[in-house]
Amino acid sequence: MKIVLAPDSFKGSLTSAQASEAMEKAIHSVDSRIETIVKPMADGGEGTLEALLKATKGERVSFTCRGPLGDDSESSFVEIEDEGAVIEGANISGLPMVPREKRNPDLTTTYGMGEAILHALDRGNKQFIIGLGGSSTNDGGLGMLQALGMKAFDANGKPVGPFGKDIFQVDTVDLNFVDPRLKDVTIKVACDVDNPLTGERGASHVYGPQKGATSDQIEAYDKALGKYGRLIEQATDRQFANEEGAGAAGGLGFAFLAIGAELHSGAKLVSDAIGLAAAIQQADLVITGEGQSDVQTLYGKAPGYVANLATTFGKPAILLSGSLEGDLRKMNEMFSGCFSIVPGPRTLAECMNEGEGYLYEACRQLTHLFIKLMKE
Amino acid sequence: MKIVLAPDSFKGSLTSAQASEAMEKAIHSVDSRIETIVKPMADGGEGTLEALLKATKGERVSFTCRGPLGDDSESSFVEIEDEGAVIEGANISGLPMVPREKRNPDLTTTYGMGEAILHALDRGNKQFIIGLGGSSTNDGGLGMLQALGMKAFDANGKPVGPFGKDIFQVDTVDLNFVDPRLKDVTIKVACDVDNPLTGERGASHVYGPQKGATSDQIEAYDKALGKYGRLIEQATDRQFANEEGAGAAGGLGFAFLAIGAELHSGAKLVSDAIGLAAAIQQADLVITGEGQSDVQTLYGKAPGYVANLATTFGKPAILLSGSLEGDLRKMNEMFSGCFSIVPGPRTLAECMNEGEGYLYEACRQLTHLFIKLMKE
Repeated sequence: MKIVLAPDSFKGSLTSAQASEAMEKAIHSVDSRIETIVKPMADGGEGTLEALLKATKGERVSFTCRGPLGDDSESSFVEIEDEGAVIEGANISGLPMVPREKRNPDLTTTYGMGEAILHALDRGNKQFIIGLGGSSTNDGGLGMLQALGMKAFDANGKPVGPFGKDIFQVDTVDLNFVDPRLKDVTIKVACDVDNPLTGERGASHVYGPQKGATSDQIEAYDKALGKYGRLIEQATDRQFANEEGAGAAGGLGFAFLAIGAELHSGAKLVSDAIGLAAAIQQADLVITGEGQSDVQTLYGKAPGYVANLATTFGKPAILLSGSLEGDLRKMNEMFSGCFSIVPGPRTLAECMNEGEGYLYEACRQLTHLFIKLMKE
Repeated sequence: MKIVLAPDSFKGSLTSAQASEAMEKAIHSVDSRIETIVKPMADGGEGTLEALLKATKGERVSFTCRGPLGDDSESSFVEIEDEGAVIEGANISGLPMVPREKRNPDLTTTYGMGEAILHALDRGNKQFIIGLGGSSTNDGGLGMLQALGMKAFDANGKPVGPFGKDIFQVDTVDLNFVDPRLKDVTIKVACDVDNPLTGERGASHVYGPQKGATSDQIEAYDKALGKYGRLIEQATDRQFANEEGAGAAGGLGFAFLAIGAELHSGAKLVSDAIGLAAAIQQADLVITGEGQSDVQTLYGKAPGYVANLATTFGKPAILLSGSLEGDLRKMNEMFSGCFSIVPGPRTLAECMNEGEGYLYEACRQLTHLFIKLMKE
């Protein structure tokens, strides 16, 4: 029997790598002859790098770049054989990197993302996978584009800085000095939101508040990003401010579109990078999991993507979850079974602390059942 | 596919009949062509009558007898085709029938059990299944035996009463007038304790306190039951005060042994009465369940008995539990899978209130899995 283990993280309790390890141990504790294929999943957000490192032959590369507030900051990306560099925005200008009292989109920048890309280019990478989730910025990618070589000036022809507040000064942009190596690379951005750059559903209105923007700031940013967007569009002679995902990560999605990146579902990018489809094709069973599940699990979330792949190849997909909410009927169109790992009446804190043991035991029980039923 | 549904009760939440109904509905909501065989289980204690009524062609018979405190009390037993009468002691002299402030073994009697047996004999029953669990009495079955015709006298030759306090007066017994019809019947008593009539592990010491006995009373009863036991043994010319179960239900087990009853595991008696073995033999799968499970589930509890039968016939047995505690490895020698029905972090009260829905959904998920795996 061959089982693919492709859980997402159990947020607050287990990373996807830890979850897949617990599952593997559980299965082998029942029968060490069962072949397991460990493919921890992620959706391009937090934990993506770790999952890719576990699921592939990858190497972590450390480097220094500007952090979200512009100070020098230690960061890292991952280089994967045949897949190139994987860079997580959350590691460079992530919201958790900014102390709560300093959260203000005026003061944050995506400059470090540009530096990370340059560093990866220097190391010869031709392919990029970029995670956008959890950003602290609303600079429209101004910082990143500047790091990559774009010039931006105010109405007096003076260069502007790379922070959110500088977007208000931008009057002209010049993309002629953007690193020419970018023309020969493929950049795939993990993006599971469909927001345009501006407007009611734009970056500032939808994600500004969680980054500390006041309602005055939101209105001002929405307007400034509009002007900035038109300048970039004129310079590239393409229109993409209204594309789905342009508004991701405070407009960083838009800046990636400006340099020719493609936006994809994060789960799909990770799945492609770790060769999940090929693994599932040769498996008898697929087990995925996550901390909290409801019908949204099917849409854009990693376990939903895993189940979709399994269904495509006619394999049973099983969900092990820390919490099953709502009507599961829709889930059963993709999942051959959704099981809670919680063994009895327990508090949330107990479930978080004991997640590994609960997952291990639930997976053991399923393994016993598989062995028995598949022998019949 | 044919599935036997043989849960115990989920104590405080669902009777075994309710649990088996929820399971059946869940399975048919997934695929109405799956054949279900509904066999709610019990262990001879509370809920046994209801389970038997659901699992067999049975009829409830109402009658009046003395309650635990000696007052006239409405009660009922069940008559099952081919199996005779099933009488639950808890319905006649059960501890919950005695208000907490009146709980005192001096004041309670098993007289009603004798009346119930006479009533069942009058109706032509030749076989009896008796549940002993949850008794309020410590009368050594004095009341029952008197109702059945035994005479008991004090040292002055005066007849003694049927209550616990009367055991202290008993000086001679005469079994010659016990109803002669009892010689031609089979009485099987459900008994899952192995206590002798007296001593440190006897009826008074072990179960006296929960019936309201003080430590002085316990010592006195232990002594009195010793003398009473010897009198009955002399009268029957057999020794059985030290048999396993003689101390059950305040010595009522001993009194049943006196009239030729056999003591058996409650789960076995119920299983035999409902034809569980035959049902399992023709099934593909067996699902059982209970409110709270640990390794003790394997010993004498209904789900353990069900799993044992399933294992005997090489069928997968699955446990759905409201709470899985401790190491499940031993459980997996009998169960092909033990699954919690609790869908996430929940309080005990939530689990109790929502037990039916939780069980339904867990059973639906298992059904999806069966269908998928058994097709493979």
